Amino acid sequence: MKRSLRDWSTSQLAGLPNDGCYLVGVSGGRDSVVLLHWLSANGYRKLIVCHLEHALRGSAGKADARFVAQLAKACGLQFESGAADIRSIALKSKQSIETAARNERLAFFTNVARRRSCLTIFLGHHADDQVETFLMRLFRGAGGKGLASMQERSTHGPLEIVRPLLRIWRSEIDGYVAEHRLKFREDASNSEMVAQRNRIRHRVIPYLEKQFGRQIRTSIWRAAMIAAEEDVFFETLFPPELSDVLPLSAKPLRDMPVAVQRRFLHQWLRARKVADVGFELVERVRQLLDSANRVAKTNLPKDRHVRRRGGQVFLE
Amino acid sequence: MKRSLRDWSTSQLAGLPNDGCYLVGVSGGRDSVVLLHWLSANGYRKLIVCHLEHALRGSAGKADARFVAQLAKACGLQFESGAADIRSIALKSKQSIETAARNERLAFFTNVARRRSCLTIFLGHHADDQVETFLMRLFRGAGGKGLASMQERSTHGPLEIVRPLLRIWRSEIDGYVAEHRLKFREDASNSEMVAQRNRIRHRVIPYLEKQFGRQIRTSIWRAAMIAAEEDVFFETLFPPELSDVLPLSAKPLRDMPVAVQRRFLHQWLRARKVADVGFELVERVRQLLDSANRVAKTNLPKDRHVRRRGGQVFLE
Repeated sequence: MKRSLRDWSTSQLAGLPNDGCYLVGVSGGRDSVVLLHWLSANGYRKLIVCHLEHALRGSAGKADARFVAQLAKACGLQFESGAADIRSIALKSKQSIETAARNERLAFFTNVARRRSCLTIFLGHHADDQVETFLMRLFRGAGGKGLASMQERSTHGPLEIVRPLLRIWRSEIDGYVAEHRLKFREDASNSEMVAQRNRIRHRVIPYLEKQFGRQIRTSIWRAAMIAAEEDVFFETLFPPELSDVLPLSAKPLRDMPVAVQRRFLHQWLRARKVADVGFELVERVRQLLDSANRVAKTNLPKDRHVRRRGGQVFLE
Repeated sequence: MKRSLRDWSTSQLAGLPNDGCYLVGVSGGRDSVVLLHWLSANGYRKLIVCHLEHALRGSAGKADARFVAQLAKACGLQFESGAADIRSIALKSKQSIETAARNERLAFFTNVARRRSCLTIFLGHHADDQVETFLMRLFRGAGGKGLASMQERSTHGPLEIVRPLLRIWRSEIDGYVAEHRLKFREDASNSEMVAQRNRIRHRVIPYLEKQFGRQIRTSIWRAAMIAAEEDVFFETLFPPELSDVLPLSAKPLRDMPVAVQRRFLHQWLRARKVADVGFELVERVRQLLDSANRVAKTNLPKDRHVRRRGGQVFLE
């Protein structure tokens, strides 16, 4: 599996000339250090290195930030840093640590992008990240929208996100680190943040490889890449304005294919800030669309509910 | 998890009044015996019991057929049987035993349906079948169309297929068998046919339950049900006539979302009887759509190929 730098495809960099200005997210861990090195080796000179200190690792977190600052300096690149107390944000917003960290990073990147007028960011997610994320979501009960995986190119508000390593495996990144004798920070993300992911990485995937052979990673990776693109397609079906419609007319939605009803209701409920939108909840709301159904009300978390009245669906 | 007969939802029987005539597929195994018993208990009197002898199990196969014939007689129902040499069909068509058996059963059911002018068939697939099938396909590298799972209602040519047990777990079926002291044929399908499935059933799913808890079955079941409906939706996008278009115009297809390109090319290649249509093949053909790509030809199995010429895509 070992491939050297020269073999890694640069097709993901198409349309992103190396004399342009780009952000690059660097945690200080192996993957982002390799990404930064590889972009430099491909002639990218005007990178702005962005690091968000998670305040989860105490002094280790500060050392990560210092490490990344020094790395940027050594490469002659600009450096932008921020800090967020992920644990208290997660607690307050009732998100998992991983989700809260992800959202805070994206908010930080967006902020830097706007301030520096530099809207494209490189992130170091690789093929194993993709496989692990897909399995985590599948095992948590996500389908459809919830299985939508990472894309090589995507947008988040004004931010254009590029993941040039999404086809590269961790073993290849290890090979790259060895070949170039790169230094990085071990375990740069808090272990609490990745307990579930570690179980998938160190136990479940090796177990599945033993049962079905090594190609199983590629199999799951493919399913994840397909799911990511199918999500893009469904997004094109529903312009964001559609989520603002209230009340909904039951009949036209009921006449759509079930998959469209589910995707739409998922987006509609999330846009209304309903907590914990999952399969069961979407199905309960979907059943309300049928006026032959005597039940005309279903409860949501936090004392809210959805009600059907006169062929219209209200959220109260 | 044990629920008795009275608790099983009959919502899947809506629109199928019990005084109508229906086919029911009965292998003689636990699931189909329970299905038959449950339909009878729900007042279905004009069922035609259909059994395809697989000629894989020798005398055991013949005993299965006799068992089902007797069961039908005891219930006062009509009986239709057929036989197919699945092994040689699988060899000749280069399909897996499981796929060949499935296709032969569907062909047999369709034949009976036409002859008896009775186009709806009940099949005994349950929730664990759904979960196992989803994982088998995922681990083999299927995504999108390939992950499309079984639906509670679907069609196959003129045949309408209804799976009333698709929300019922194997443990509940076991409970039903015990409660009603039902007799059935053990291992009514050939073990060769289900080696991969058995590994998923007896090793992988118990392992995942140990790692992530019992709800993991429900999680995967949900993803499978969603994938099934998303496939229905994509099917509505592409009328079958579209698959007959040859050559294809590259530009309009290239302007569609990637997910649509993939689903369409998958269907198009299969309609042209291309063998082993998988992710890599679809991606190679998809890359041909881009006229900026210097490569204008890609090889298919059996010495066939796809070629782009003057903005058109040919299959030769």
